[in-house]
Amino acid sequence: MSLQPVFIGGQWRTSRYLSTFQANNPRTGEKLPDLFPVSTWEELAEALDYAQQVIPLLTALPPEARAEFLENMASKIEAKQEIITATAALETGLPQSPRFLEIELPRTTDQLRQTAAAVREGSWCLATIDTHRNIRSKYGPLGGVVIVIGPNNFPLAFNAVSGGDFAAALAAGNPVLAKAHPLHPKTSQLLAQAMAEALAESQLPPATVQFIYHFQPEDGSKAIAHPATAAVAFTGSRATGLAIKEAAEKAGKLAYLEMSSINPVFLLPGALQERASKIAEEFTASCLLGSGQFCTNPGLVVLSEGAGSKDFIQRAIDLFNNSSPGYLLSREIGLNLEKKIQALLQRGSQLLCGGHSLPEPGYRFAPTLLQVKAQAFHEQPTAFQQEMFGPASLLVVCPKAEDMLMIAASLEGNLTASLYAHTQGKDESLYQQLEPILRLKVGRLLNDKMPTGVAVSPAMMHGGPFPATGHPGFSSVGVPATILRFAARHGYDNVPQHRLPPELMDKNPTGRLWRFIDGAWTQASVNEK
Amino acid sequence: MSLQPVFIGGQWRTSRYLSTFQANNPRTGEKLPDLFPVSTWEELAEALDYAQQVIPLLTALPPEARAEFLENMASKIEAKQEIITATAALETGLPQSPRFLEIELPRTTDQLRQTAAAVREGSWCLATIDTHRNIRSKYGPLGGVVIVIGPNNFPLAFNAVSGGDFAAALAAGNPVLAKAHPLHPKTSQLLAQAMAEALAESQLPPATVQFIYHFQPEDGSKAIAHPATAAVAFTGSRATGLAIKEAAEKAGKLAYLEMSSINPVFLLPGALQERASKIAEEFTASCLLGSGQFCTNPGLVVLSEGAGSKDFIQRAIDLFNNSSPGYLLSREIGLNLEKKIQALLQRGSQLLCGGHSLPEPGYRFAPTLLQVKAQAFHEQPTAFQQEMFGPASLLVVCPKAEDMLMIAASLEGNLTASLYAHTQGKDESLYQQLEPILRLKVGRLLNDKMPTGVAVSPAMMHGGPFPATGHPGFSSVGVPATILRFAARHGYDNVPQHRLPPELMDKNPTGRLWRFIDGAWTQASVNEK
Repeated sequence: MSLQPVFIGGQWRTSRYLSTFQANNPRTGEKLPDLFPVSTWEELAEALDYAQQVIPLLTALPPEARAEFLENMASKIEAKQEIITATAALETGLPQSPRFLEIELPRTTDQLRQTAAAVREGSWCLATIDTHRNIRSKYGPLGGVVIVIGPNNFPLAFNAVSGGDFAAALAAGNPVLAKAHPLHPKTSQLLAQAMAEALAESQLPPATVQFIYHFQPEDGSKAIAHPATAAVAFTGSRATGLAIKEAAEKAGKLAYLEMSSINPVFLLPGALQERASKIAEEFTASCLLGSGQFCTNPGLVVLSEGAGSKDFIQRAIDLFNNSSPGYLLSREIGLNLEKKIQALLQRGSQLLCGGHSLPEPGYRFAPTLLQVKAQAFHEQPTAFQQEMFGPASLLVVCPKAEDMLMIAASLEGNLTASLYAHTQGKDESLYQQLEPILRLKVGRLLNDKMPTGVAVSPAMMHGGPFPATGHPGFSSVGVPATILRFAARHGYDNVPQHRLPPELMDKNPTGRLWRFIDGAWTQASVNEK
Repeated sequence: MSLQPVFIGGQWRTSRYLSTFQANNPRTGEKLPDLFPVSTWEELAEALDYAQQVIPLLTALPPEARAEFLENMASKIEAKQEIITATAALETGLPQSPRFLEIELPRTTDQLRQTAAAVREGSWCLATIDTHRNIRSKYGPLGGVVIVIGPNNFPLAFNAVSGGDFAAALAAGNPVLAKAHPLHPKTSQLLAQAMAEALAESQLPPATVQFIYHFQPEDGSKAIAHPATAAVAFTGSRATGLAIKEAAEKAGKLAYLEMSSINPVFLLPGALQERASKIAEEFTASCLLGSGQFCTNPGLVVLSEGAGSKDFIQRAIDLFNNSSPGYLLSREIGLNLEKKIQALLQRGSQLLCGGHSLPEPGYRFAPTLLQVKAQAFHEQPTAFQQEMFGPASLLVVCPKAEDMLMIAASLEGNLTASLYAHTQGKDESLYQQLEPILRLKVGRLLNDKMPTGVAVSPAMMHGGPFPATGHPGFSSVGVPATILRFAARHGYDNVPQHRLPPELMDKNPTGRLWRFIDGAWTQASVNEK
């Protein structure tokens, strides 16, 4: 077993490591052969120094250099798609096809290409010009490194070295220090190889993107607080997210965090009367997708009591019991899920199906449904809003419409809320009462649709109020909005034409750039208005 | 002496107070007659409860209701302009005319009207539509109260109950709890009266804006962390700003802070050769404006050594010595300034003029210039970057261009940096070396212009990297960008037309709203594209 190299200062090299780790195969529980380093603080500090030196060089290059790199990287990933998706399947237990080959890898390369197109087109920078006063502003790089920490559940599309945060941070013109998730180090390494090959062929300085596998939490906090660092992007658990938030904010750094969400689904009485069974099918497919390991997993279903709710519950139980349990990413996920379920049972909820890990080999969990009375939920609303990461959901049956409103009002910040209503308008009045409450609690509000499936669209909102994320004004999916998270607003006051960045000169640099000039969006040059 | 009332729950009422305080007249040092309450925690909690109840009502009203209120409030302020400006002069020691009557009051009402226009026009919400997938998003209210804490130095334009933060927070649709600055409570009360009169004539719920004079720091922190609170906006000292930041972020609340800035001014050799005396005049006017009590006060001047620098310094000393010292807002400001100056002297800087408070009655300070060698600055860059709030500035004479570059590189985050260069291009090479360094350190970069004077323009950037503010992506001056600080991004996925907010329906609600539809900014409706 040879120790795998890190990518620092533009080179693959032997790590100055503290300790080593191996990934597991979730289908067998066996260790996978490669040995990966946990970087020392010295290694992190060295990477941060390299990144800091890159900043002036990177800032001086035209956006085209970043766009070309991102596009080339997408091609490099495609050239390696067999080995990347096979490795991702091996490290995660999720199926190579369709999950990785047909869905997540194309999503990843599409996201890189969309980001490249946004960088080339340039309108993301919201160039704003006041011609009368010669005051101008646009978004530009932060002037520091962005540390990207990837999650366990999307080894490609959210990977620290290939995912949305990575692409957005680079798009804004910042160097990136990417930390893989330790559950899929080999997949991350392969993506980092695609990145490194594209980097070598680009005009970008060699240390523009650096890559490590792991660090100790205290070293991570030190890196975040380091003078070279401007921001951190993290997707993962609430406990880790809060620790990162504290480390970052104490040092005056920006922290973009996607931490936890139970994604409540409200099933209104008319919808249940009309199509309980169909909704149960949609719910099951959404809840068990990727073994339930999605940040948009529907973890709480609030149903109006009646014949429809009985049908929904019975149909969901049947579907859950008859589904073929997928694999969890790690043993710990199953253990945590069991603890969460035990806590819910102790607080008076009832187990409808599942509730336990399945016999090894492999990490599997019986698809799980719990039910709790609305009254019990009202009494302990926080206790019943604990994210259950995995194939599990809690159903709350509400005797009265008032119960649904109370539950909505007691919710924490979430990424999403879904409302299922009668197609011919029977639920409209209740919808109109529920919607204003839910609207202020979540980032994305869905109608007649489960929350999984987050399209990479400029209009997408993947974010939400605390504790779902750290700032409700930003989305972590959907170009170009994602880029703004990693950008500073740069104002120019009385600066003559030849010293302005091209996006702010009188002449529209491409003729296609959208700019806000004297109160109107336009693609015209200043003198052409 | 009667205790002045607070405005809570839509009514002027007797405060449930903890203690009382009086303002001083800075021109005499004497206490002013009115007695003002320091609110108890119970009073704050009650106000927060009122504000929370307002949220659904406020959210349900059309934007027009907020626009009308803001405009009416501007008129009410104008109707009281004599008493407001006279009181502001009395409480601050700054001249009623021109400072308040001709400059700050018109700026305040203009800002309210610009914000009203932005609310009515609606483009601030960045409506984004993906017609193919029926995914839509826009910015909307945060779902919680915004606590606005005003500064000491702009009793009108930045007042918590009439200034930019107040207007922006309300514009986004949030209720506001405004805390006046204790140095100008009566001015704040008069502005709050204008606000309350406009509120009574509006469709807005009575507790949409509430107003208190003061609270204890620990109660302020509790209010910020309260479940009803979504965000806090603060303008003031770094120490207080950092305490507010910690209290807010620990509780997952947004904190927008404008904390400190020394606003470095770089005088390049050609500029000094060409017009040293003229620049010294501009510098003096800017540095002594409002007795130097501006967040954009030029507190650090970095000059290229030579005949020009000698002329500049001598001329500046003459102008400083011959200026008529204005009044400081409080005795403490003078005491703090003396301490800061002592610290700089101990570290090896040299006093060129001033350096001490003037004899009472009244709080005045001799206009002060200090000088330090570039080498000494390099050795202790942090020590020489302490904000001196008041009529004082530190000059650093640089024997070599390299010294200017080193000083630029060692700067903390600032609101502004100014570069003065030769008008015929002699400094261009040095400019091109300095600019990229300064660009990433500041919000607004000026050419041949002093930093004071922050136009209320959509293109204005009044903000900057930490520790100047808490987030470099936002501006606290300039509509509509300021509004986005107090807004959440609201996504709609598969929501039918009749349930969408007007801004996101296919039909452009006004025909004037700018929206980003399928990748292009347009005022057309969806079916008209």
